[in-house]
Amino acid sequence: MKTVRDIGEFALIERIARVIPTSPAVLEGIGDDCAVMRLDDRLLLASCDMSVEGVHFRREQAAPDDIGWKVAAAALSDIAAMGGTPRFALAAVSCPPDTPLTFVEELFKGMGNVLSQFGAVIVGGDTTRSRTGVAIDVTVLGEIYGDRYLRRTGAQIGDLLAVTGRLGLSAAGLHALEQRLDAPELVAAHFHPDPRIPEGQWLSTQTDVHAMIDVSDGLAQDAGHLVEASDLGINLNGERIVPAPPLAEYCQRHGLTALDFMLAGGEDYELLFALDPHSAPTLLDSFRTTFRTDATIVGEFTDAWTGIRLDGKPVAVAGFDHFK
Amino acid sequence: MKTVRDIGEFALIERIARVIPTSPAVLEGIGDDCAVMRLDDRLLLASCDMSVEGVHFRREQAAPDDIGWKVAAAALSDIAAMGGTPRFALAAVSCPPDTPLTFVEELFKGMGNVLSQFGAVIVGGDTTRSRTGVAIDVTVLGEIYGDRYLRRTGAQIGDLLAVTGRLGLSAAGLHALEQRLDAPELVAAHFHPDPRIPEGQWLSTQTDVHAMIDVSDGLAQDAGHLVEASDLGINLNGERIVPAPPLAEYCQRHGLTALDFMLAGGEDYELLFALDPHSAPTLLDSFRTTFRTDATIVGEFTDAWTGIRLDGKPVAVAGFDHFK
Repeated sequence: MKTVRDIGEFALIERIARVIPTSPAVLEGIGDDCAVMRLDDRLLLASCDMSVEGVHFRREQAAPDDIGWKVAAAALSDIAAMGGTPRFALAAVSCPPDTPLTFVEELFKGMGNVLSQFGAVIVGGDTTRSRTGVAIDVTVLGEIYGDRYLRRTGAQIGDLLAVTGRLGLSAAGLHALEQRLDAPELVAAHFHPDPRIPEGQWLSTQTDVHAMIDVSDGLAQDAGHLVEASDLGINLNGERIVPAPPLAEYCQRHGLTALDFMLAGGEDYELLFALDPHSAPTLLDSFRTTFRTDATIVGEFTDAWTGIRLDGKPVAVAGFDHFK
Repeated sequence: MKTVRDIGEFALIERIARVIPTSPAVLEGIGDDCAVMRLDDRLLLASCDMSVEGVHFRREQAAPDDIGWKVAAAALSDIAAMGGTPRFALAAVSCPPDTPLTFVEELFKGMGNVLSQFGAVIVGGDTTRSRTGVAIDVTVLGEIYGDRYLRRTGAQIGDLLAVTGRLGLSAAGLHALEQRLDAPELVAAHFHPDPRIPEGQWLSTQTDVHAMIDVSDGLAQDAGHLVEASDLGINLNGERIVPAPPLAEYCQRHGLTALDFMLAGGEDYELLFALDPHSAPTLLDSFRTTFRTDATIVGEFTDAWTGIRLDGKPVAVAGFDHFK
């Protein structure tokens, strides 16, 4: 009998999309970062993210407020990837009855902190018993102000691929935790990702930005999602994928390759977007000035092949698949 | 160290509500059946329900589409309890990688079936790995058409307590499953509850209905929620709490007490509401004619005591608490 491991996370999502009905009010259903629904003249966004003990986090490694921050940040990042504004959230938590009360309170404080930092509040949820382990599901509801939002599809031949901030820090932070190596800055990046909400809103108002996704499963895999629907390819420019200083130092100190973390490491929650090459210099300058955050070109779209290459050579798209 | 078992589900929910921020756009936050949010002139509803293998269902007992139906029906029932109209849903599922693909597909079909029966569609979700067991969280988004919705609070002294349909069938169905007794009608009630969406909408437009809740944790406990905030009491009239024929027969055959299932048995997803005694006969007649479903008076509100009594005698409010 075929299992979900056999087909993997992304084929599973496609199979699910096939068995459920949809409606004309749903502008974007299963398959993009967020669902987009029309309510009269408003565009409503919704996204959820589930986090499971022993899979996404370990209670020995992470403080409960960090666990809460991170799962809510992941759901917020999906709102950012469409250019939306988060408004409300629901949080469902299952845990064994012997879970300390303070654990649950701190978990909710962590969720509340990152949500309120971006203008959203927890309005409801569910608390229930589990046999073992804690599981958390956060659903974030948001809105699109104006009529434009960015999807995964939309990149054009010759578009440049750009990314906000720096990649690979979260994955290196997890590596440091697991190997018990000292790297506080990387560990902080792992536990406290900042979803790029205002940056996403700004980018979605730029008509020369054509498509966007957040980097949750690694640069190579998420860039792959950007080309999948448009039948294009991307050439990543290895020289331009520059590690942030703490990642470079960490990798040098421990004989690791920074590019591996940057290509395949997930949970950065940066924004990856396709933009018109002619307006790219001005647009990225303006982005840097507005947000005091870097945004760099890391590759370009091409119709010479499909899929992801690095300096012209095919790369194995290593990234996170929950079931493989 | 205090655990969630020590304080129980309802005190836990109160503690959570205290540690998270809120906003003026949130008309009803944590504590009622649904969250109610204002978006300009629209009222948005949101509710979620989590279901955990080994706690809420057993894969040996339940078909995957039944599991999906039931968890989505529970979230829909919260929308019904406010008088809302369900529109969209998100479903997060965690499962081990060796879960059969058909299990996940059937699970989503079950959710899709009950949602589409009431006009809602699944727009997104999350699929992720678990170490053991399946967990499902369904978030339903709905709307209030018009400006009136029913809360748990609002009952007045002298109001009658009425309930739609029949109670205790779902709990007796679970009993039959666990005892391996033959009771197909009860088992069907357990697996396929029908959320009272149109009934809830109709009741919420009646100004003589003052408060409402859905029966998810048993008549005694959910009636308790209706009196908690208003500092009133309820006297349940034992003679009027009449078992449906299949429940009466089942209890007679196996030497059980039907009233126990009706008072303490959860997951009926009927609607329990407070109504003005003067308009009660006309209103209930009209309800029965409109929906070809019974609605009966089972008690009345009083200020002579707080809490729940049965024929004037205090009853232990036995019902479901996830952590006790």
